[in-house]
Amino acid sequence: MLLLNASRAPMSESTSQAEGPARRNLVDKLLAGDRRALARIISIVEHAGPEGRAALVKLYPHTGRAQIVGVTGPPGAGKSTLVNELALELRRRGRTIAIVAVDPTSPFTGGSILGDRIRMQPLGGDSGVFIRSMASRGQLGGIARATGDVVKVFDAAGFDVIVVETIGAGQAEVEIAREAHTTVVVEVPGLGDDVQAIKAGILEVADIFVVNKADREGAESCRRQLQMMMRLGTPVPGAPGEGWEIPVLTAVATRGEGIGGVADALEGHWRFLHESGRFVERERERAVRELHAIVQNMALDFVRARVPRAQRDEIVAHIQRRALDPYTGAEQLLADALGVAGPT
Amino acid sequence: MLLLNASRAPMSESTSQAEGPARRNLVDKLLAGDRRALARIISIVEHAGPEGRAALVKLYPHTGRAQIVGVTGPPGAGKSTLVNELALELRRRGRTIAIVAVDPTSPFTGGSILGDRIRMQPLGGDSGVFIRSMASRGQLGGIARATGDVVKVFDAAGFDVIVVETIGAGQAEVEIAREAHTTVVVEVPGLGDDVQAIKAGILEVADIFVVNKADREGAESCRRQLQMMMRLGTPVPGAPGEGWEIPVLTAVATRGEGIGGVADALEGHWRFLHESGRFVERERERAVRELHAIVQNMALDFVRARVPRAQRDEIVAHIQRRALDPYTGAEQLLADALGVAGPT
Repeated sequence: MLLLNASRAPMSESTSQAEGPARRNLVDKLLAGDRRALARIISIVEHAGPEGRAALVKLYPHTGRAQIVGVTGPPGAGKSTLVNELALELRRRGRTIAIVAVDPTSPFTGGSILGDRIRMQPLGGDSGVFIRSMASRGQLGGIARATGDVVKVFDAAGFDVIVVETIGAGQAEVEIAREAHTTVVVEVPGLGDDVQAIKAGILEVADIFVVNKADREGAESCRRQLQMMMRLGTPVPGAPGEGWEIPVLTAVATRGEGIGGVADALEGHWRFLHESGRFVERERERAVRELHAIVQNMALDFVRARVPRAQRDEIVAHIQRRALDPYTGAEQLLADALGVAGPT
Repeated sequence: MLLLNASRAPMSESTSQAEGPARRNLVDKLLAGDRRALARIISIVEHAGPEGRAALVKLYPHTGRAQIVGVTGPPGAGKSTLVNELALELRRRGRTIAIVAVDPTSPFTGGSILGDRIRMQPLGGDSGVFIRSMASRGQLGGIARATGDVVKVFDAAGFDVIVVETIGAGQAEVEIAREAHTTVVVEVPGLGDDVQAIKAGILEVADIFVVNKADREGAESCRRQLQMMMRLGTPVPGAPGEGWEIPVLTAVATRGEGIGGVADALEGHWRFLHESGRFVERERERAVRELHAIVQNMALDFVRARVPRAQRDEIVAHIQRRALDPYTGAEQLLADALGVAGPT
């Protein structure tokens, strides 16, 4: 159901309407390194529509170079601080970095909870770092789509590393992390029982573990537990991580401790992906997933464009009355859109 | 992208293959109150496929009576205990209750983290309560789809109240909660800063707040904060909760305290939904969302069935090489499937 909010321009709509000289200029400026053009295009792309799509079509040939890093983990693990410190470390190593902070919006203030303001402070003024908060704005489903699109913009703009940081630790967050080349799972000692359960869901996508707040009580036992789980675990053959020994690192992000190790692990995993051939594989899987998602959205737009509103409303009313089940209803809609006789 | 795992039987496949006398019997048995038939059908429905779909088509006319209650909140809030106590209270009030616990699976043991075993203890032997853990089993995307389908099965089986309890507090969990008639958000005092942020994402879907572990320090201030946020908040006109004053309740679930109040609030919200006309509205929105999701999955299956594998692989290879963007690729696929000339 998440895809419904992520619908794009209908199939019939040409992209030409957004190809005016002004827009083409903006894309060229972005490719030339203009940070204001970058910010503008991100805003355009965030709000799904023909304009954003036209920009993405133009930017796409310039993507595929950045290392995309997902950072996830339970609330309170100190992910933001860790990501900020990591950005500083990567800059010291001469790399440019973009941060996409997936961030729930307050329905009351309308603003995002963690302002860019706060996060930018230690990094402000450096054009080699760009931070963007993605607010969900009630469009819960659109966030995975929008995040993927913004990552593409940063990729085309030439950033070496793009970090996608998610606040939650739910399924959607794991889904976003799965789209990364390298996923860092941040843990923290002593967060109660449920966290264990959440951990399990996240273990599958982890390429690197970081036990943050390692100066706290229980840090060493948390690290040992994770390491044991990693060693005991017999990964499914062909699983994404096969051939990569998942490191369990420790850090105290607030004091900048252990950050060098995290940066090393990122570089190590990037080398592993390329040397093992996993990179091509992951990219292929990603292309298939994205293509399928776009096909689904375009198909729905096609059905909406071809079947008159009144006819669609009638099907919905029948379903609501339980006179029709949704599967048969969907078959009818598709048959109507394709201009063939329905199955009943 | 979440929908890709939730694909159903291709459009061309008739449901008749699963309509043998044995299967029909199983559905009849379920409708007659047979709990073993119920468990069998849930297992069939959980694994998307033609058999499950055939069962859902048959069961659909019998759905639409249950109050679907979503229970969500941060990890460590004591949701499971609260739900168990709520089940006991609702039984005392003569109502039947089904619990769907959405539960991440351990990739190492293969089993679900919270076993039905543990949860059943206080409720065992009562046929008016049925608990089912939904494990994600790596199929991250399928969980929302599977949860919705299992809820339909319980609904058709005649349960008065169906509680969907999610462990995480991420977007997918909120998405699942949104499908409920009444959403209970469980909070707990003193869980750090990030929790505040997560709260914000959840506030939008809350119909009832429960501050659990209310014997802990900070409980009263947590309750007051939530109440203030509720009062200060000017909900968007037409928002789902308009006209309903969201109660902020306290409970100590481990001692059974405050559970009666939660049950009262559930009943109150159910009355509100019906008296205000919101019920019909919510049901309509739900029907539209589900119909669209099924249309999307069927369309993808249609494209896969119509466009030869080699041709699809070629498009993916072009996208990977950045010789083609995924939007134009998707247009080509749809055009190929529909047998018309592509846009390029």
